[in-house]
Amino acid sequence: MTLPSKILEEAVEQLASLPGVGKRSALRYALFLMNEDESKVRDLSEALMHLKTHLHHCRHCHNVSDTEVCPICSSEKRQRGIICVVENVQDVMAVENTQQYRGLYHVLGGVISPIDGIGVGDLEIASLIRRVQTGDPAPVEEVILALPTTMEGDTTNYYINKQLQPLGVKITTLARGVAVGDSLDYTDEITLGRSIAHRIPFEG
Amino acid sequence: MTLPSKILEEAVEQLASLPGVGKRSALRYALFLMNEDESKVRDLSEALMHLKTHLHHCRHCHNVSDTEVCPICSSEKRQRGIICVVENVQDVMAVENTQQYRGLYHVLGGVISPIDGIGVGDLEIASLIRRVQTGDPAPVEEVILALPTTMEGDTTNYYINKQLQPLGVKITTLARGVAVGDSLDYTDEITLGRSIAHRIPFEG
Repeated sequence: MTLPSKILEEAVEQLASLPGVGKRSALRYALFLMNEDESKVRDLSEALMHLKTHLHHCRHCHNVSDTEVCPICSSEKRQRGIICVVENVQDVMAVENTQQYRGLYHVLGGVISPIDGIGVGDLEIASLIRRVQTGDPAPVEEVILALPTTMEGDTTNYYINKQLQPLGVKITTLARGVAVGDSLDYTDEITLGRSIAHRIPFEG
Repeated sequence: MTLPSKILEEAVEQLASLPGVGKRSALRYALFLMNEDESKVRDLSEALMHLKTHLHHCRHCHNVSDTEVCPICSSEKRQRGIICVVENVQDVMAVENTQQYRGLYHVLGGVISPIDGIGVGDLEIASLIRRVQTGDPAPVEEVILALPTTMEGDTTNYYINKQLQPLGVKITTLARGVAVGDSLDYTDEITLGRSIAHRIPFEG
């Protein structure tokens, strides 16, 4: 793709570095912005810079936050003895959207994946262990492992479990099973198998 | 979707205003940028501002350009008597990529579309007529209408043709037919019909 302008080329190249954005989409975005008001493009440009300059990771749970300690960690209304361990910020939002969970979180920032060069040291695992050891900001009774059921997620679960076992904290994981509304013949056999193995009392 | 931060929310909202970008993709972009180097985000942010502050539309053909007159319009090697009329910048790039066309361009910036509120005055049609009338930057012998074959494209073709007819310039349009490599049974009937109606001598 030969672009008619160096400035356009630079913008397209930068936009195409966003995850899942190809050159063609990047060009579409750039030409769209070119025809927008200058104030609008300035707002976008500044909002992106603010991500780097004004946005924090919460000191305790490492979720994104406008403040040093996020609203969830500083809330006295949450069950402060329970920590839900998730891969990323989107997963916190997914659990919050259920409105079924009132505990705290711990965002690892990924899962152990040697193939992508992500080791234990690249993740917020040490800080999780420290939270349980020191009881700061609150004494921990239960850690819920809510990582994805992939090989990498399982490896990370295994590692964290091994580290937490000696500390005597209760360790749980999400129930896996047939999704609400799904029919059995469209459910994969591993999920259905787990649903049967971990069957629960019927609530009549 | 409830975001854990106002700053993140602002960035997501701005990114989601790009064409075809939803909230979920915008969040993905924002979190990606948050984890990038500050210099990288600054480069992106500046490249976007440059689109507004440094990028021009060519004075003659209205294609995007780093200079007041674009390289195509200022080239003495092009056939300066032929103007190819296209809808947008991407179409210039598409024609240039064929390496079959050596004339100049005229970018309308859209097509007449009352339903989208785009009228003759919103497009670079008057400037096209003026180019033909005045012969500036070069006397025009032929205008090639290369607009999309949609109702809006046809309306625009019709309007431009009506304006140019009295000026005695040659007006042509792109050949429509079965695409190279396409099989007949997968070609729509209108295209195939035009291919037959406008059949050309066989070159043995």
